[in-house]
Amino acid sequence: MVVGDIIVIGIAGGTGSGKTTITQEVARRLGDEITVITHDSYYCAHHEMTYDERVLLNYDHPDAYDTEMLVADLAALKRGETVEVPVYDYTIYDRSDLTTTVHPARVIIVEGIMIFHHEELRDLMDIKVFVDADADVRILRRIVRDVNERGRSLDSVITQYLSTVKPMHEAFVEPSKRYADIIIPVGGENLVALEMLVNRIQAHLNSAK
Amino acid sequence: MVVGDIIVIGIAGGTGSGKTTITQEVARRLGDEITVITHDSYYCAHHEMTYDERVLLNYDHPDAYDTEMLVADLAALKRGETVEVPVYDYTIYDRSDLTTTVHPARVIIVEGIMIFHHEELRDLMDIKVFVDADADVRILRRIVRDVNERGRSLDSVITQYLSTVKPMHEAFVEPSKRYADIIIPVGGENLVALEMLVNRIQAHLNSAK
Repeated sequence: MVVGDIIVIGIAGGTGSGKTTITQEVARRLGDEITVITHDSYYCAHHEMTYDERVLLNYDHPDAYDTEMLVADLAALKRGETVEVPVYDYTIYDRSDLTTTVHPARVIIVEGIMIFHHEELRDLMDIKVFVDADADVRILRRIVRDVNERGRSLDSVITQYLSTVKPMHEAFVEPSKRYADIIIPVGGENLVALEMLVNRIQAHLNSAK
Repeated sequence: MVVGDIIVIGIAGGTGSGKTTITQEVARRLGDEITVITHDSYYCAHHEMTYDERVLLNYDHPDAYDTEMLVADLAALKRGETVEVPVYDYTIYDRSDLTTTVHPARVIIVEGIMIFHHEELRDLMDIKVFVDADADVRILRRIVRDVNERGRSLDSVITQYLSTVKPMHEAFVEPSKRYADIIIPVGGENLVALEMLVNRIQAHLNSAK
C-alpha cells in the first residue's frame, strides 16, 4: 500500500447518538475498503487491581482509555502496517489476553464517544464527524439498549447515566464537538448525511485507484 | 432536461455564519452545472408603501420574504423550466422592475438565513445544510462587512443587530437548525466540509450523466 493513500475518518458522538449505526452502515456499504477501530477496545488494562476495585472506576472519563496505544496503532495503520488491537472483556472490567489482527485499508474509521478530546488522536484524522441527537432521545436509546438487549435494570441505567455518563458528556463530549468538521444531527436515521459521507469516501477511493 | 435529474440543496445559517462563502466556493468549483438562487432576492415588494414606511419594516423576520414566490420558482426550476427571479433594490427598500433570467441546472442551490423555516420550501430540498458559527464570530464578521465594505456606522450595525437580527435569529433561525441534514461548523473556512459537499454533488452529476 502506498502511504498517503489512507484517509482516517473519526466518528464521535454521545451515548445513543447513533454513531455506531452510521459507522456500521458506512462499513456495510463500502465493505473491504474500510477498517473500523473503536476507542472502546482500548479501555485501560488494570491487571494490578482486584475486580472490586476495577468495578468502581469511572468508565465515562477520558482517563479510562489507553488512548496513547490507540494513537500508536492508528499511526501504524496509516503507515500501512498491521496492528494487534486489544480485546476488552466487559465481564471482568479488564483487558483480555486476546487481540484482533487489523490490517490497514485505504479508509480507516475510528469510532468512539471521546475521540475528539485528545489532540494527538484528532491530528491523525482527516475528517472529523460528530453524530448528534437531543439528550432525551439519546437516553431513551441507551435505556432500550441496556435494559432490553443487555438485561440491565432500569434503576442501574438511570443511576449510571446521572452519576457519570451525563456529567462526563457535558465535561468532555459536548465541548469536543467544536473540533468536528461536520455535525450529523438525528444520527442513525439520517440517510442524507450517510449518503454524503459515503460519497466523500467513494471519491477518495476513486482518486486513490 | 429529464425531470428527476435535478437535486436541490438548501444552504442556511445565521448572519456571518459563512454560508455565502460556502455557496460561492461550491459554485466556483462546479461551475455551469449549478444554479444558485438566494432568498434575499425574494424580499417582498411594497410598492404600496412610502419609503419612510418601508424603512421601518423588520427585514429579519420571515414575513419580510415573498417565500411563496420562491417556492413557485423553485418548483418550476425542478420541473426544468426557466424562471424570472426578482431583483431587490436595497437603496429603496423595495423590489425593482428588473428580473434575472435563471435557467435550471442539474444542481440548484437555494441560499438564505431563513430557508428552513418554511415547510413548503424545505420539502423541495433534497439536502439541507446548516452553516454554523459562534454568535460572537458571526457578529464580528457582520461588523467587518457592514462597516468596512458597506460604509455603515458601527452604532447602526449594533443597534440593528440587538433590536432585530439577534432576536429573530433566536426565534426563527436557530430553531430551524433542527431540520438540517448536516451542520457545518466554522463555516467558510471549513475545507473538509466543503470537500464533502462537493463530492456529494459530483456523485449526483456523475450518476445523472
